Amino acid sequence: MAGVAGPAAVVLVSGGLDSATCLAIARAGGFRCFALSFAYGQRHEAELRAAERVARSLGAEQHRVMSIDLAAFGGSALTDRTIAVPESATPGIPVTYVPARNTVFLSLALAWAEVLQARDIFIGVNAVDYSGYPDCRPEFIAAFERLANLATRAGVEGSEQIRIRTPLIDLSKADIIRRGLALGVDFAATVSCYQADDDGRACGRCDSCRLRREGFVAAKTPDPTRYR
Amino acid sequence: MAGVAGPAAVVLVSGGLDSATCLAIARAGGFRCFALSFAYGQRHEAELRAAERVARSLGAEQHRVMSIDLAAFGGSALTDRTIAVPESATPGIPVTYVPARNTVFLSLALAWAEVLQARDIFIGVNAVDYSGYPDCRPEFIAAFERLANLATRAGVEGSEQIRIRTPLIDLSKADIIRRGLALGVDFAATVSCYQADDDGRACGRCDSCRLRREGFVAAKTPDPTRYR
Repeated sequence: MAGVAGPAAVVLVSGGLDSATCLAIARAGGFRCFALSFAYGQRHEAELRAAERVARSLGAEQHRVMSIDLAAFGGSALTDRTIAVPESATPGIPVTYVPARNTVFLSLALAWAEVLQARDIFIGVNAVDYSGYPDCRPEFIAAFERLANLATRAGVEGSEQIRIRTPLIDLSKADIIRRGLALGVDFAATVSCYQADDDGRACGRCDSCRLRREGFVAAKTPDPTRYR
Repeated sequence: MAGVAGPAAVVLVSGGLDSATCLAIARAGGFRCFALSFAYGQRHEAELRAAERVARSLGAEQHRVMSIDLAAFGGSALTDRTIAVPESATPGIPVTYVPARNTVFLSLALAWAEVLQARDIFIGVNAVDYSGYPDCRPEFIAAFERLANLATRAGVEGSEQIRIRTPLIDLSKADIIRRGLALGVDFAATVSCYQADDDGRACGRCDSCRLRREGFVAAKTPDPTRYR
Protein backbone atom coordinates (compact mmCIF):
# COMPACT_ATOMS: atom_id res chain seq x y z
CA MET A 1 0.00 0.00 0.00
CA ALA A 2 3.06 2.27 -0.05
CA GLY A 3 2.45 5.49 -1.88
CA VAL A 4 -1.26 5.67 -1.05
CA ALA A 5 -2.24 9.24 -0.20
CA GLY A 6 -3.99 10.38 2.95
CA PRO A 7 -2.84 11.28 6.45
CA ALA A 8 -0.99 8.69 8.52
CA ALA A 9 -2.66 7.17 11.56
CA VAL A 10 -1.48 4.66 14.14
CA VAL A 11 -4.11 1.97 14.74
CA LEU A 12 -3.95 -0.41 17.69
CA VAL A 13 -4.73 -3.89 16.38
CA SER A 14 -5.11 -6.75 18.84
CA GLY A 15 -6.34 -9.45 16.49
CA GLY A 16 -9.84 -9.25 17.92
CA LEU A 17 -13.13 -8.25 16.37
CA ASP A 18 -13.27 -4.68 17.67
CA SER A 19 -9.84 -3.54 16.55
CA ALA A 20 -10.32 -5.16 13.12
CA THR A 21 -13.45 -3.06 12.64
CA CYS A 22 -11.62 -0.02 13.96
CA LEU A 23 -8.87 -0.52 11.37
CA ALA A 24 -11.45 -0.93 8.61
CA ILE A 25 -13.09 2.34 9.68
CA ALA A 26 -9.74 4.15 9.69
CA ARG A 27 -8.96 2.83 6.20
CA ALA A 28 -12.43 3.79 4.96
CA GLY A 29 -11.76 7.27 6.36
CA GLY A 30 -8.80 7.62 4.03
CA PHE A 31 -6.00 7.12 6.52
CA ARG A 32 -2.71 5.40 5.75
CA CYS A 33 -2.72 2.98 8.65
CA PHE A 34 0.27 1.97 10.73
CA ALA A 35 -0.97 -1.02 12.72
CA LEU A 36 0.56 -1.67 16.13
CA SER A 37 0.22 -4.85 18.16
CA PHE A 38 1.84 -5.98 21.38
CA ALA A 39 3.41 -9.19 22.56
CA TYR A 40 2.82 -8.30 26.18
CA GLY A 41 2.90 -11.70 27.80
CA GLN A 42 -0.67 -12.65 26.95
CA ARG A 43 -1.71 -16.27 27.28
CA HIS A 44 -1.57 -17.14 23.63
CA GLU A 45 0.13 -16.06 20.43
CA ALA A 46 -2.91 -16.83 18.28
CA GLU A 47 -4.14 -13.27 18.63
CA LEU A 48 -0.87 -11.91 17.25
CA ARG A 49 -1.16 -14.13 14.20
CA ALA A 50 -4.74 -12.88 13.86
CA ALA A 51 -3.49 -9.28 14.13
CA GLU A 52 -1.05 -9.94 11.31
CA ARG A 53 -3.84 -11.38 9.10
CA VAL A 54 -6.16 -8.49 9.93
CA ALA A 55 -3.53 -5.82 9.24
CA ARG A 56 -2.61 -7.39 5.91
CA SER A 57 -6.13 -8.08 4.70
CA LEU A 58 -7.37 -4.60 5.59
CA GLY A 59 -4.52 -2.82 3.84
CA ALA A 60 -2.41 -1.46 6.67
CA GLU A 61 0.70 0.22 5.32
CA GLN A 62 2.85 -1.32 8.04
CA HIS A 63 2.28 -3.70 10.94
CA ARG A 64 4.56 -3.78 13.95
CA VAL A 65 4.52 -6.11 16.90
CA MET A 66 6.23 -4.61 19.89
CA SER A 67 7.30 -6.68 22.89
CA ILE A 68 6.63 -5.44 26.41
CA ASP A 69 6.78 -7.89 29.24
CA LEU A 70 3.69 -6.93 31.27
CA ALA A 71 3.73 -10.52 32.54
CA ALA A 72 6.79 -9.53 34.60
CA PHE A 73 4.39 -7.42 36.67
CA GLY A 74 1.57 -10.00 36.63
CA GLY A 75 -1.66 -9.08 38.35
CA SER A 76 -4.04 -10.26 35.62
CA ALA A 77 -5.51 -13.54 34.47
CA LEU A 78 -4.35 -12.62 30.97
CA THR A 79 -0.68 -12.38 31.91
CA ASP A 80 -0.38 -14.65 34.94
CA ARG A 81 -1.14 -18.30 34.33
CA THR A 82 -1.69 -18.92 38.02
CA ILE A 83 -4.88 -16.79 37.84
CA ALA A 84 -7.70 -18.62 36.05
CA VAL A 85 -9.74 -16.93 33.31
CA PRO A 86 -13.28 -16.74 34.73
CA GLU A 87 -16.00 -18.51 32.77
CA SER A 88 -18.94 -16.64 34.23
CA ALA A 89 -19.58 -12.93 34.70
CA THR A 90 -18.38 -11.41 37.97
CA PRO A 91 -19.31 -8.04 39.49
CA GLY A 92 -16.75 -5.22 39.44
CA ILE A 93 -13.53 -5.12 37.45
CA PRO A 94 -12.73 -8.68 36.34
CA VAL A 95 -9.39 -10.44 36.89
CA THR A 96 -8.83 -10.30 33.14
CA TYR A 97 -8.16 -6.57 33.52
CA VAL A 98 -4.44 -6.01 32.79
CA PRO A 99 -3.18 -3.14 34.96
CA ALA A 100 -2.73 0.03 32.92
CA ARG A 101 -2.71 -1.90 29.65
CA ASN A 102 -4.45 0.66 27.48
CA THR A 103 -2.34 3.44 28.99
CA VAL A 104 0.80 1.53 28.05
CA PHE A 105 -0.52 0.70 24.56
CA LEU A 106 -1.63 4.27 23.84
CA SER A 107 1.69 5.63 25.12
CA LEU A 108 3.61 3.48 22.67
CA ALA A 109 1.17 4.37 19.89
CA LEU A 110 1.83 8.01 20.76
CA ALA A 111 5.59 7.46 20.52
CA TRP A 112 5.22 5.95 17.06
CA ALA A 113 2.72 8.61 15.96
CA GLU A 114 5.09 11.36 16.96
CA VAL A 115 7.93 9.84 14.92
CA LEU A 116 5.61 9.32 11.94
CA GLN A 117 4.19 12.83 12.38
CA ALA A 118 0.79 11.20 12.50
CA ARG A 119 -1.88 13.17 14.32
CA ASP A 120 -4.44 10.40 14.68
CA ILE A 121 -4.40 7.33 16.90
CA PHE A 122 -7.22 4.81 16.60
CA ILE A 123 -8.19 2.46 19.40
CA GLY A 124 -11.16 0.08 19.29
CA VAL A 125 -12.38 0.61 22.84
CA ASN A 126 -16.04 0.27 23.45
CA ALA A 127 -18.07 1.50 26.40
CA VAL A 128 -21.28 -0.46 25.76
CA ASP A 129 -20.72 -4.22 25.52
CA TYR A 130 -17.44 -4.25 27.38
CA SER A 131 -16.00 -5.98 30.38
CA GLY A 132 -15.93 -3.17 32.92
CA TYR A 133 -12.30 -2.16 32.39
CA PRO A 134 -11.50 1.36 33.64
CA ASP A 135 -9.32 2.09 30.62
CA CYS A 136 -12.13 1.65 28.09
CA ARG A 137 -14.20 4.58 29.39
CA PRO A 138 -14.69 7.84 27.46
CA GLU A 139 -13.27 9.88 30.36
CA PHE A 140 -10.06 7.84 30.20
CA ILE A 141 -9.72 8.48 26.47
CA ALA A 142 -10.36 12.21 26.91
CA ALA A 143 -7.71 12.37 29.63
CA PHE A 144 -5.22 10.51 27.43
CA GLU A 145 -5.83 12.87 24.52
CA ARG A 146 -5.22 15.83 26.78
CA LEU A 147 -2.02 14.21 28.06
CA ALA A 148 -0.85 13.39 24.53
CA ASN A 149 -1.01 17.04 23.58
CA LEU A 150 1.08 18.06 26.58
CA ALA A 151 3.55 15.17 26.31
CA THR A 152 4.83 15.79 22.81
CA ARG A 153 6.32 18.35 20.49
CA ALA A 154 2.77 19.24 19.42
CA GLY A 155 2.04 20.54 22.91
CA VAL A 156 5.06 22.82 23.00
CA GLU A 157 5.23 23.93 19.42
CA GLY A 158 1.48 24.47 19.08
CA SER A 159 1.32 22.42 15.92
CA GLU A 160 -1.69 20.35 14.94
CA GLN A 161 -3.34 18.53 17.82
CA ILE A 162 -3.19 14.78 18.39
CA ARG A 163 -6.56 13.05 18.38
CA ILE A 164 -7.39 9.74 20.01
CA ARG A 165 -10.11 8.31 17.79
CA THR A 166 -12.54 5.79 19.22
CA PRO A 167 -15.07 5.08 16.48
CA LEU A 168 -16.56 2.13 18.37
CA ILE A 169 -16.99 3.74 21.74
CA ASP A 170 -20.77 4.16 21.57
CA LEU A 171 -21.55 1.06 19.51
CA SER A 172 -23.01 -2.20 20.73
CA LYS A 173 -21.16 -5.39 19.82
CA ALA A 174 -23.86 -6.09 17.24
CA ASP A 175 -23.37 -2.62 15.72
CA ILE A 176 -19.61 -3.22 15.55
CA ILE A 177 -20.17 -6.53 13.76
CA ARG A 178 -22.58 -4.97 11.25
CA ARG A 179 -20.23 -2.07 10.65
CA GLY A 180 -17.27 -4.42 10.14
CA LEU A 181 -19.18 -6.66 7.74
CA ALA A 182 -20.24 -3.62 5.70
CA LEU A 183 -16.56 -2.67 5.41
CA GLY A 184 -15.47 -6.15 4.37
CA VAL A 185 -13.90 -7.38 7.62
CA ASP A 186 -13.45 -11.16 7.67
CA PHE A 187 -14.30 -11.94 11.27
CA ALA A 188 -13.22 -15.54 10.78
CA ALA A 189 -9.67 -14.15 10.76
CA THR A 190 -10.08 -12.55 14.19
CA VAL A 191 -9.54 -14.09 17.63
CA SER A 192 -11.34 -12.66 20.66
CA CYS A 193 -11.02 -15.54 23.15
CA TYR A 194 -8.91 -14.91 26.25
CA GLN A 195 -7.66 -18.49 26.15
CA ALA A 196 -7.65 -19.49 22.49
CA ASP A 197 -5.62 -22.56 21.62
CA ASP A 198 -2.52 -22.42 19.41
CA ASP A 199 -4.71 -22.81 16.38
CA GLY A 200 -6.80 -19.76 17.37
CA ARG A 201 -9.87 -21.80 18.33
CA ALA A 202 -12.01 -20.18 21.02
CA CYS A 203 -13.08 -21.62 24.37
CA GLY A 204 -16.65 -20.32 23.98
CA ARG A 205 -16.91 -19.76 27.72
CA CYS A 206 -14.84 -16.72 28.77
CA ASP A 207 -16.27 -13.22 29.02
CA SER A 208 -14.81 -12.18 25.69
CA CYS A 209 -16.28 -15.24 23.92
CA ARG A 210 -19.65 -14.57 25.55
CA LEU A 211 -19.77 -10.92 24.42
CA ARG A 212 -18.70 -11.90 20.92
CA ARG A 213 -21.21 -14.72 20.59
CA GLU A 214 -24.07 -12.53 21.87
CA GLY A 215 -23.01 -9.88 19.36
CA PHE A 216 -23.37 -12.21 16.40
CA VAL A 217 -26.76 -13.38 17.69
CA ALA A 218 -27.96 -9.78 18.13
CA ALA A 219 -26.59 -8.82 14.69
CA LYS A 220 -28.53 -11.75 13.21
CA THR A 221 -25.51 -12.88 11.26
CA PRO A 222 -23.70 -16.25 11.29
CA ASP A 223 -20.92 -16.53 13.86
CA PRO A 224 -17.74 -17.59 12.00
CA THR A 225 -15.82 -18.21 15.25
CA ARG A 226 -14.04 -21.53 15.35
CA TYR A 227 -14.74 -23.10 18.71
CA ARG A 228 -12.70 -25.98 19.99
CA MET B 1 15.58 -4.38 52.53
CA ALA B 2 12.68 -6.85 52.58
CA GLY B 3 10.48 -6.49 55.62
CA VAL B 4 11.05 -2.74 56.01
CA ALA B 5 7.79 -0.96 56.85
CA GLY B 6 6.30 1.99 54.97
CA PRO B 7 4.15 2.35 51.91
CA ALA B 8 5.39 1.00 48.58
CA ALA B 9 6.37 3.39 45.81
CA VAL B 10 7.58 2.86 42.28
CA VAL B 11 10.61 5.05 41.51
CA LEU B 12 11.89 5.61 37.99
CA VAL B 13 15.67 5.28 38.08
CA SER B 14 17.69 6.07 34.98
CA GLY B 15 21.16 5.90 36.40
CA GLY B 16 21.55 9.66 36.24
CA LEU B 17 22.01 12.26 38.93
CA ASP B 18 18.40 13.46 39.15
CA SER B 19 16.71 10.09 39.55
CA ALA B 20 19.34 8.99 42.12
CA THR B 21 18.44 12.02 44.24
CA CYS B 22 14.75 11.32 43.66
CA LEU B 23 15.20 7.76 44.96
CA ALA B 24 17.10 9.05 48.01
CA ILE B 25 14.24 11.47 48.74
CA ALA B 26 11.65 8.70 48.42
CA ARG B 27 13.65 6.49 50.79
CA ALA B 28 14.10 9.37 53.25
CA GLY B 29 10.32 9.83 53.10
CA GLY B 30 9.86 6.31 54.43
CA PHE B 31 8.82 4.59 51.22
CA ARG B 32 9.69 1.01 50.32
CA CYS B 33 11.05 1.70 46.86
CA PHE B 34 10.55 -0.44 43.77
CA ALA B 35 13.04 0.95 41.29
CA LEU B 36 12.23 0.70 37.59
CA SER B 37 14.65 1.25 34.72
CA PHE B 38 14.29 0.77 30.98
CA ALA B 39 16.45 -0.75 28.32
CA TYR B 40 14.75 1.28 25.62
CA GLY B 41 17.37 1.25 22.93
CA GLN B 42 19.49 4.05 24.36
CA ARG B 43 23.01 4.53 23.03
CA HIS B 44 24.83 2.89 25.90
CA GLU B 45 24.28 0.35 28.63
CA ALA B 46 26.47 2.22 31.12
CA GLU B 47 23.44 4.05 32.48
CA LEU B 48 21.68 0.76 33.24
CA ARG B 49 24.69 -0.44 35.20
CA ALA B 50 24.63 2.91 37.01
CA ALA B 51 20.91 2.45 37.74
CA GLU B 52 21.66 -0.94 39.28
CA ARG B 53 24.39 0.56 41.50
CA VAL B 54 22.14 3.47 42.50
CA ALA B 55 19.17 1.24 43.34
CA ARG B 56 21.30 -1.08 45.43
CA SER B 57 23.28 1.58 47.27
CA LEU B 58 20.19 3.62 48.13
CA GLY B 59 18.25 0.66 49.51
CA ALA B 60 15.61 -0.01 46.88
CA GLU B 61 13.58 -3.08 47.78
CA GLN B 62 13.61 -4.30 44.19
CA HIS B 63 15.11 -3.11 40.93
CA ARG B 64 13.68 -4.10 37.59
CA VAL B 65 14.96 -3.36 34.13
CA MET B 66 12.24 -3.57 31.53
CA SER B 67 12.98 -3.78 27.81
CA ILE B 68 11.01 -1.67 25.36
CA ASP B 69 12.38 -1.16 21.92
CA LEU B 70 11.77 2.57 21.37
CA ALA B 71 14.68 2.42 18.92
CA ALA B 72 12.32 0.55 16.58
CA PHE B 73 10.46 3.85 16.22
CA GLY B 74 13.61 5.99 16.14
CA GLY B 75 13.17 9.75 15.88
CA SER B 76 15.73 10.72 18.54
CA ALA B 77 19.47 11.11 18.77
CA LEU B 78 19.32 8.90 21.87
CA THR B 79 17.81 5.92 20.07
CA ASP B 80 18.92 6.38 16.47
CA ARG B 81 22.66 6.26 15.89
CA THR B 82 22.30 8.03 12.56
CA ILE B 83 21.28 11.22 14.43
CA ALA B 84 24.27 12.85 16.15
CA VAL B 85 24.09 13.99 19.77
CA PRO B 86 24.50 17.78 19.62
CA GLU B 87 27.44 19.26 21.48
CA SER B 88 26.13 22.79 21.76
CA ALA B 89 22.77 24.15 22.91
CA THR B 90 20.08 24.50 20.22
CA PRO B 91 16.83 26.47 20.38
CA GLY B 92 13.54 24.58 20.74
CA ILE B 93 13.13 20.91 21.57
CA PRO B 94 16.49 19.20 21.01
CA VAL B 95 17.00 16.06 18.91
CA THR B 96 17.81 14.19 22.11
CA TYR B 97 14.10 14.30 22.96
CA VAL B 98 12.76 10.73 22.72
CA PRO B 99 9.16 10.84 21.49
CA ALA B 100 6.71 10.19 24.34
CA ARG B 101 9.42 8.64 26.51
CA ASN B 102 8.20 9.85 29.89
CA THR B 103 4.62 8.94 28.96
CA VAL B 104 5.77 5.40 28.18
CA PHE B 105 7.92 5.18 31.33
CA LEU B 106 5.17 6.51 33.61
CA SER B 107 2.62 4.16 32.01
CA LEU B 108 4.76 1.16 32.82
CA ALA B 109 5.44 2.52 36.32
CA LEU B 110 1.67 2.82 36.70
CA ALA B 111 1.19 -0.80 35.62
CA TRP B 112 3.68 -2.00 38.22
CA ALA B 113 2.27 0.33 40.90
CA GLU B 114 -1.21 -1.03 40.34
CA VAL B 115 -0.02 -4.61 40.75
CA LEU B 116 1.97 -3.68 43.88
CA GLN B 117 -0.98 -1.65 45.19
CA ALA B 118 1.44 1.25 45.46
CA ARG B 119 -0.15 4.68 45.36
CA ASP B 120 3.00 6.70 44.78
CA ILE B 121 5.16 6.99 41.68
CA PHE B 122 8.35 9.05 41.84
CA ILE B 123 9.96 10.59 38.76
CA GLY B 124 12.98 12.87 38.85
CA VAL B 125 11.81 15.39 36.27
CA ASN B 126 12.97 18.91 36.67
CA ALA B 127 11.56 22.05 35.12
CA VAL B 128 14.43 24.43 35.88
CA ASP B 129 17.78 23.22 34.54
CA TYR B 130 16.34 20.89 31.95
CA SER B 131 16.66 20.42 28.24
CA GLY B 132 13.32 21.74 27.02
CA TYR B 133 11.54 18.39 26.79
CA PRO B 134 7.72 18.68 26.76
CA ASP B 135 7.33 15.69 29.07
CA CYS B 136 9.26 17.26 31.95
CA ARG B 137 6.77 20.10 32.48
CA PRO B 138 4.50 20.37 35.54
CA GLU B 139 1.39 20.47 33.32
CA PHE B 140 2.39 17.15 31.76
CA ILE B 141 2.82 15.57 35.20
CA ALA B 142 -0.56 16.92 36.37
CA ALA B 143 -2.23 15.52 33.26
CA PHE B 144 -0.60 12.14 33.78
CA GLU B 145 -1.72 12.00 37.40
CA ARG B 146 -5.26 12.76 36.33
CA LEU B 147 -5.06 10.05 33.66
CA ALA B 148 -3.60 7.53 36.13
CA ASN B 149 -6.62 7.92 38.37
CA LEU B 150 -9.01 7.29 35.50
CA ALA B 151 -6.98 4.45 33.96
CA THR B 152 -6.88 2.09 36.90
CA ARG B 153 -8.99 0.28 39.46
CA ALA B 154 -8.48 3.26 41.78
CA GLY B 155 -10.48 5.44 39.40
CA VAL B 156 -13.43 3.08 39.27
CA GLU B 157 -13.46 1.79 42.79
CA GLY B 158 -12.83 5.17 44.39
CA SER B 159 -9.96 3.81 46.46
CA GLU B 160 -6.94 5.88 47.43
CA GLN B 161 -5.64 8.14 44.68
CA ILE B 162 -2.43 7.63 42.74
CA ARG B 163 0.09 10.43 43.12
CA ILE B 164 2.88 11.27 40.69
CA ARG B 165 5.59 12.69 42.90
CA THR B 166 8.16 15.04 41.43
CA PRO B 167 10.32 16.22 44.32
CA LEU B 168 12.88 17.81 42.00
CA ILE B 169 10.55 19.71 39.74
CA ASP B 170 11.27 23.17 41.13
CA LEU B 171 14.92 22.64 42.05
CA SER B 172 17.97 23.90 40.19
CA LYS B 173 20.63 21.35 39.29
CA ALA B 174 22.79 22.77 42.09
CA ASP B 175 19.89 22.30 44.57
CA ILE B 176 19.46 18.71 43.40
CA ILE B 177 23.16 18.02 43.93
CA ARG B 178 23.14 19.56 47.42
CA ARG B 179 20.00 17.65 48.35
CA GLY B 180 21.46 14.37 47.06
CA LEU B 181 24.75 14.87 48.91
CA ALA B 182 22.86 15.59 52.13
CA LEU B 183 21.05 12.26 51.66
CA GLY B 184 24.23 10.31 50.98
CA VAL B 185 23.97 9.88 47.22
CA ASP B 186 27.30 8.87 45.66
CA PHE B 187 27.19 10.85 42.42
CA ALA B 188 30.35 9.11 41.22
CA ALA B 189 28.10 6.08 40.71
CA THR B 190 25.72 7.96 38.38
CA VAL B 191 25.99 8.49 34.63
CA SER B 192 24.30 11.49 32.99
CA CYS B 193 26.12 11.66 29.65
CA TYR B 194 24.07 10.96 26.52
CA GLN B 195 27.02 9.21 24.95
CA ALA B 196 29.01 7.69 27.80
CA ASP B 197 31.50 5.01 26.85
CA ASP B 198 31.16 1.37 27.94
CA ASP B 199 32.99 2.19 31.11
CA GLY B 200 30.51 4.96 31.97
CA ARG B 201 32.94 7.80 31.24
CA ALA B 202 31.28 11.03 30.10
CA CYS B 203 31.92 13.00 26.92
CA GLY B 204 31.82 16.34 28.76
CA ARG B 205 30.29 18.04 25.74
CA CYS B 206 26.62 17.04 25.35
CA ASP B 207 23.74 19.01 26.85
CA SER B 208 23.36 16.60 29.74
CA CYS B 209 27.09 16.81 30.59
CA ARG B 210 26.94 20.60 30.38
CA LEU B 211 23.96 20.88 32.78
CA ARG B 212 25.59 18.44 35.18
CA ARG B 213 28.96 20.18 35.17
CA GLU B 214 27.38 23.61 35.68
CA GLY B 215 25.38 22.13 38.57
CA PHE B 216 28.50 21.01 40.43
CA VAL B 217 30.13 24.38 39.85
CA ALA B 218 27.03 26.23 41.15
CA ALA B 219 26.76 23.86 44.13
CA LYS B 220 30.43 24.62 44.93
CA THR B 221 31.19 20.94 45.35
CA PRO B 222 33.76 18.77 43.54
CA ASP B 223 32.48 17.12 40.36
CA PRO B 224 33.11 13.37 40.69
CA THR B 225 32.20 12.70 37.04
CA ARG B 226 34.73 10.56 35.22
CA TYR B 227 35.38 12.20 31.87
CA ARG B 228 37.08 10.33 29.09
